Amino acid sequence: MMSDAPGLFGELFADSEMSSAMSDKALLHGMLGFEALLAHALEVEGLAPAGTAAAVAGQCDPDLYDIAELGRAATLAGNPAIPLVKALTARVAVASPEPAKWVHYGATSQDVIDCAYVHMIGRGLKLIDLRLGRLVQAMRPLLEAHRATPVIGRTFLQQAIPISFGVKAALWLDPVLESRRILHDILEAPVVQFSGAAGTLAALGDDAERVQNQFVDVTLGAPSSLIPWHAQRHRNARLAAELGILTGNLGKIARDVSLMAQTEIGELAEPEAPGKGGSSAMPHKRNPVLCTLILAAAQRAPGLVGTMLTAMPHEHERALGGWHAEWPTLPELFRVAGAALAQTVTLMEGLQVFPERMRANIDLTHGLVMSERVSVALADALGKAQAHHLLEEASRVCLTEDRHLREVLGNLAAVTDHLDDSTLDHLFDPSTYRGASDAIIDRVLLRCEHPRETARPKDSA
Amino acid sequence: MMSDAPGLFGELFADSEMSSAMSDKALLHGMLGFEALLAHALEVEGLAPAGTAAAVAGQCDPDLYDIAELGRAATLAGNPAIPLVKALTARVAVASPEPAKWVHYGATSQDVIDCAYVHMIGRGLKLIDLRLGRLVQAMRPLLEAHRATPVIGRTFLQQAIPISFGVKAALWLDPVLESRRILHDILEAPVVQFSGAAGTLAALGDDAERVQNQFVDVTLGAPSSLIPWHAQRHRNARLAAELGILTGNLGKIARDVSLMAQTEIGELAEPEAPGKGGSSAMPHKRNPVLCTLILAAAQRAPGLVGTMLTAMPHEHERALGGWHAEWPTLPELFRVAGAALAQTVTLMEGLQVFPERMRANIDLTHGLVMSERVSVALADALGKAQAHHLLEEASRVCLTEDRHLREVLGNLAAVTDHLDDSTLDHLFDPSTYRGASDAIIDRVLLRCEHPRETARPKDSA
Amino acid sequence: MMSDAPGLFGELFADSEMSSAMSDKALLHGMLGFEALLAHALEVEGLAPAGTAAAVAGQCDPDLYDIAELGRAATLAGNPAIPLVKALTARVAVASPEPAKWVHYGATSQDVIDCAYVHMIGRGLKLIDLRLGRLVQAMRPLLEAHRATPVIGRTFLQQAIPISFGVKAALWLDPVLESRRILHDILEAPVVQFSGAAGTLAALGDDAERVQNQFVDVTLGAPSSLIPWHAQRHRNARLAAELGILTGNLGKIARDVSLMAQTEIGELAEPEAPGKGGSSAMPHKRNPVLCTLILAAAQRAPGLVGTMLTAMPHEHERALGGWHAEWPTLPELFRVAGAALAQTVTLMEGLQVFPERMRANIDLTHGLVMSERVSVALADALGKAQAHHLLEEASRVCLTEDRHLREVLGNLAAVTDHLDDSTLDHLFDPSTYRGASDAIIDRVLLRCEHPRETARPKDSA
Amino acid sequence: MMSDAPGLFGELFADSEMSSAMSDKALLHGMLGFEALLAHALEVEGLAPAGTAAAVAGQCDPDLYDIAELGRAATLAGNPAIPLVKALTARVAVASPEPAKWVHYGATSQDVIDCAYVHMIGRGLKLIDLRLGRLVQAMRPLLEAHRATPVIGRTFLQQAIPISFGVKAALWLDPVLESRRILHDILEAPVVQFSGAAGTLAALGDDAERVQNQFVDVTLGAPSSLIPWHAQRHRNARLAAELGILTGNLGKIARDVSLMAQTEIGELAEPEAPGKGGSSAMPHKRNPVLCTLILAAAQRAPGLVGTMLTAMPHEHERALGGWHAEWPTLPELFRVAGAALAQTVTLMEGLQVFPERMRANIDLTHGLVMSERVSVALADALGKAQAHHLLEEASRVCLTEDRHLREVLGNLAAVTDHLDDSTLDHLFDPSTYRGASDAIIDRVLLRCEHPRETARPKDSA
Repeated sequence: MMSDAPGLFGELFADSEMSSAMSDKALLHGMLGFEALLAHALEVEGLAPAGTAAAVAGQCDPDLYDIAELGRAATLAGNPAIPLVKALTARVAVASPEPAKWVHYGATSQDVIDCAYVHMIGRGLKLIDLRLGRLVQAMRPLLEAHRATPVIGRTFLQQAIPISFGVKAALWLDPVLESRRILHDILEAPVVQFSGAAGTLAALGDDAERVQNQFVDVTLGAPSSLIPWHAQRHRNARLAAELGILTGNLGKIARDVSLMAQTEIGELAEPEAPGKGGSSAMPHKRNPVLCTLILAAAQRAPGLVGTMLTAMPHEHERALGGWHAEWPTLPELFRVAGAALAQTVTLMEGLQVFPERMRANIDLTHGLVMSERVSVALADALGKAQAHHLLEEASRVCLTEDRHLREVLGNLAAVTDHLDDSTLDHLFDPSTYRGASDAIIDRVLLRCEHPRETARPKDSA
Repeated sequence: MMSDAPGLFGELFADSEMSSAMSDKALLHGMLGFEALLAHALEVEGLAPAGTAAAVAGQCDPDLYDIAELGRAATLAGNPAIPLVKALTARVAVASPEPAKWVHYGATSQDVIDCAYVHMIGRGLKLIDLRLGRLVQAMRPLLEAHRATPVIGRTFLQQAIPISFGVKAALWLDPVLESRRILHDILEAPVVQFSGAAGTLAALGDDAERVQNQFVDVTLGAPSSLIPWHAQRHRNARLAAELGILTGNLGKIARDVSLMAQTEIGELAEPEAPGKGGSSAMPHKRNPVLCTLILAAAQRAPGLVGTMLTAMPHEHERALGGWHAEWPTLPELFRVAGAALAQTVTLMEGLQVFPERMRANIDLTHGLVMSERVSVALADALGKAQAHHLLEEASRVCLTEDRHLREVLGNLAAVTDHLDDSTLDHLFDPSTYRGASDAIIDRVLLRCEHPRETARPKDSA
Repeated sequence: MMSDAPGLFGELFADSEMSSAMSDKALLHGMLGFEALLAHALEVEGLAPAGTAAAVAGQCDPDLYDIAELGRAATLAGNPAIPLVKALTARVAVASPEPAKWVHYGATSQDVIDCAYVHMIGRGLKLIDLRLGRLVQAMRPLLEAHRATPVIGRTFLQQAIPISFGVKAALWLDPVLESRRILHDILEAPVVQFSGAAGTLAALGDDAERVQNQFVDVTLGAPSSLIPWHAQRHRNARLAAELGILTGNLGKIARDVSLMAQTEIGELAEPEAPGKGGSSAMPHKRNPVLCTLILAAAQRAPGLVGTMLTAMPHEHERALGGWHAEWPTLPELFRVAGAALAQTVTLMEGLQVFPERMRANIDLTHGLVMSERVSVALADALGKAQAHHLLEEASRVCLTEDRHLREVLGNLAAVTDHLDDSTLDHLFDPSTYRGASDAIIDRVLLRCEHPRETARPKDSA
Repeated sequence: MMSDAPGLFGELFADSEMSSAMSDKALLHGMLGFEALLAHALEVEGLAPAGTAAAVAGQCDPDLYDIAELGRAATLAGNPAIPLVKALTARVAVASPEPAKWVHYGATSQDVIDCAYVHMIGRGLKLIDLRLGRLVQAMRPLLEAHRATPVIGRTFLQQAIPISFGVKAALWLDPVLESRRILHDILEAPVVQFSGAAGTLAALGDDAERVQNQFVDVTLGAPSSLIPWHAQRHRNARLAAELGILTGNLGKIARDVSLMAQTEIGELAEPEAPGKGGSSAMPHKRNPVLCTLILAAAQRAPGLVGTMLTAMPHEHERALGGWHAEWPTLPELFRVAGAALAQTVTLMEGLQVFPERMRANIDLTHGLVMSERVSVALADALGKAQAHHLLEEASRVCLTEDRHLREVLGNLAAVTDHLDDSTLDHLFDPSTYRGASDAIIDRVLLRCEHPRETARPKDSA
């Protein structure tokens, strides 16, 4: 468990809000919350006498308990629920022995701990949902402001053809919207656990189903049914995978920004702040710290997701290790994804965009990046293969003789026979080379409003 | 790429149907399918002249191409699409030069390959969907036939309390239903790719959006819009994760079956078949071969999923490695999950269940496994802590003196003061220790019919 | 970074000694140690004036610095070295401005942090070395005491043939000895870092090599040369892999112990302790807590190792993420492996062995487990295939008629023609079925003394 | 198992030599080799009659067996050894019944398969060793030819300070030398398996140790002892990790080359070849295909290594899944690492180096990259902090006013008071900014000759 106080690494790997949501205190809060809700359900269903719920709830303040002491007992017991239940029962019994009998009644340690994790997951997902909302707000203006800002498209780190920076930002945003939708759905549909020693709640006898339903309803605030999942961990694995996918999406953005922020490229820069990204040895440098941390997160998440998947084949009704492997792993994934997300919000809110550098880089290859366009324009007349071949030859001339492709082509009869000067000029203007760019941007903007919408903008009118 | 012919490992790691869906031939089929559909869209939208689609489609039979030759060229080119487009264009041109101009028009290698993978994924998911259907059919009878068959519940590989084998099977089945629902949804909503050199389809100029829409509609058979995903791989990562989760679910079943099939436990056995699972050294042994292979799959899937997540942060408009890492990985995941699924179907269709051994194992501990039940029954009178303590003491007596708990308790006044003989007998009868068992089984059976249903059976009436 | 104080999970996932070795304080200690040694080297080589080393060292007490404050600055700067160097320089300057000029002279943040990790790694490896020594001491007596204790060998979780528990323990121990040898070698050969902004130590001009050598010598206490590894992380990846392999070795032991501790098998039990492994719901249960935690560790380590490998392809002279991904990952691996190791020591020091249960389990199959032996004994007379077939048939009779194999065989002329009664009795005595058992145990015992020895005991005489 | 014939992906992911070493045929060869050597040992030790070894060896030609048929039987049996032993025994028996009795005598399937893998691993490591030798030969000239070729050092993808390309190449090479040394050691010390049904070779009775020793000696060609490792997989895990580390090392080289080959940077280019790296849409592009594939390999290896580690905790004397997970994984790692290595050899043998572009890029920042050097030069006079601050200010002026740092500094009295014109000129000459560069290159060159050498060149004289 990470401590709440910032350590030497500050918030590089975990921000304080998410650390708090995943802290020992949150876990304790969730465990005590389980016991309070259980007492409530037992009283409502008439098993426990009136006053039980209040008596138990009165001792469910996390501040009443000593985490270090519980931890020492947990080391022996194998989990923190056993000592906590003892401590809670003892506290309740001090005031009145009767309600103490009903503490944890019918439940097992895994009910307590799984529900405490459901609580932590809920808090974590709420933070992520909020941050994803902020990220969408930060990114939308990039789509709109740079709808027509030419930037070179690059494939295999080679200049390909010009696109617009708005399209690039739209394609960054689209998977973020998908992550947001899916994680929001998970947030909305928590599945709690209250299933007793081996999943059947047998200890409650004929009352089992009734008390279980009552517990679930009061916990979730709505009627729902429960199928035990003590040893069925697909939901946690799926949640972990989604956090990993989100982090991968953010990693893609950070990869692009960091590449575009290279000294030699200079099309983007991270937001400036005093003391940010300075080098201890080189005063002129501004290191892209945010991208660095987001990319580190994208390298860490897959291994953690792998652990969650590896741990799935639990033994029988409770696992011998597989469950315990989840305990430190899922919160760490929230910290990893949460920090990367917060860093991406900061990155996008203050991203510096340099359209003139984008334009200068397009011009760097003396028109070669427009060769596809000219090739297509010539294909009608010459056939695709012939046109492709002609452009390959002309490109070679440009490279060896350091000339501009426009000029080389202007001197070739095979070209000028089919394309006049103004057509050639137009073909070399990147701002007119748009294809479906507007449609793409519009589709992503539509999804910002209607995340489940996949139809075409025109169709949705 | 795996060969279609069975190798030395036969179908241990990949069955022939799935191998075929993921074969070079399927990839070739998918690539040629892309080119045929593109030619069709170009003709329908009036760019290519009438006859283009037919001329191209006529050369799109995979058997016309030499895979080894394409492979040799792919080694240099970096992908198999480039030599295939050359070969296809040449073949089309033989008959008529005009349609050859339109082969691959506006498209890029990644369009071809991504769409070919969409084709392979569709075939793979269809197989998985069918097998999941068969698996549900094979497992349902276990829930029904063994609704009341007592079996010991085990936690941490220790006997805990009795449950029913029907409940155990229900909890095996529930995550399978969830995997089935989610993978079916993915199967139903393929997302194709046709976005050109850098995602904007710029080469098609003002026709881009129209041709793109036409291509998407004809490919998917329904109107849909497209947001390019050349460098946005969340969907493939999510699909990979779902295959990993499915494999994990199956691994959990195999783990349990293999543990219950231990010589010393003998509650279940794998289906028998001549030559199956024999040991070369020990004639009496029957190795649980199916469980072995399913568990091997569950250990292999997480690493493959991790690769798909690791590969997500693509560079710019096309990745330098991240895309290529997907090529062998996603098909391998289909092979891994598909084989494990086929093996689980066989396992469940012929699973041998030995209720008498289940019962004998419950009796092994001289009644200790009923101590929770007695403890709860005494808690009313003695208080939970006191009852728990009494049972701990009595259990110790049983263990040290090798006596049955029923007998030890029958001699303790603290017990007999509150529980008479017939009550004690009832408490030691595992078949009456059911709690919410029926509700759980019913909920899972309901989900078999209504996979999206999460309400309680009674509520849905 | 984990806090030093035990949290709710106590020492389940990290023991306090290893947590301390991997703590923020250890990191701070290591960073300050770098600066002190650098100042020393600069003074010895005549660059910095006399008194520099003392002035700097005087401010290198970790308690002088506020970790939370450094952490807040690290969040912006991107690493904790930058604010620490500032704070150290300021403190040194208060006493005297001259030595302050030489703080961190020629160095870069990565030199500081890499060396601080070398310091933490050294502390971690020392702990692991000690624990491995204790583990070997705890395990050796098992080999000796149980050299001839029969236990059933199990393959695929099926009873195979009897072996001795001493052999089983010897095979547990052998890979532990290998891990110990390799990790000890790594501990003995640390490689420090002092290479400046881009690896060439250019800022030190012609003094670079001399100062670097001096720094390395004083740091390691022996002459050694340095090849920079700012962006070459194979050693850390290899160390991570070794920690993962150690954890896997321990996982194998825990897997076996937990399987042998199953209620139905009962051949081993974890050491007892008050409050250990109790179940909150079932008073009779003793959960194998140690095995559980060790197996959880074995599921967590592979993902962490994967991250270290994934992070290897650094960009240029310092990575954008790959280095940072190491920061939380390598210490976590030490915590994971270290805790699993401490738990295995406890497990082995107090392991409860029940030879009579081992013997009873051998007898469970009515002699079937001796069929290989009889088969071999008959092979001379009948041929291998025929003998194998005969035993298969006889085994089937045993199973269907619930008879002992000794008895069934005693009634078959095909057997009694070749084997008399006393020979048959001997063949069914597991304690005489030893093969190379003694040689194996002796070889492992030899390796305890001579870890690099791979020759045969007899050869080494 | 991959087929030997090149598929659609050609040699992108696996070259034909390594595919052959890891093929079904190699596996079959290895299994038959085991049986031949076992028969030999049995005859030499006097168990089997004279002629046995020859009779068995005569049927050990892989071409005598039908792989598809064996595969079909393996699907049922759970491994290919069982049907192969049957087929081999039958073939031997045709000629003479006596030797057939001794086929596979005392052995178990895992002995056969583990030894077959030892055979495949040996072949794989030999290929890797050869390629590593070629790689070292290809890289050494880069260190020598470019010892003094200035190139900008880059950290966080930002220009830092100039280094030499020879240093950069030296740091690429150093970890390759380490991988070579370690993998060579593994190649030299294979550990074979012959341990029988449960590790004790009990079926051989008192002959066990003698026959085992004989088998090991004849197999390895030298006396060695054997400790069974049926369920102890650390060596295979370690080998897997080394292959992963090698791939990571190669990934680092490919990362750098691909970044330096960016259109905007152009310092390096992949070797040209007709048809190589062409784009289907953009005639001017040359995609860095080799780097792409090497980086894809570096993303795939970690997951495969993770599987090998995950699979380590085998059950008892033979695993239920963990062993089988190795079967497809370890050969795949050889294919992944082997292909990446072959590609790196090609890359390095034909690498195009453009020193003038390296020089031009250094000049791109108007001298800012020399600021560390000037800062250090001024530190003596001004103090480090003051000098750092001055350079930060001057750098800002350069950036905002687009001036060269040399010029800005030449106009500052705080600078010119301490540094005259020729000193400033010298400080701005990257070719003189070398620090320990020569020492580093020499140390790596020394290691090429003496891979275990870590002392300083001067010390080794």
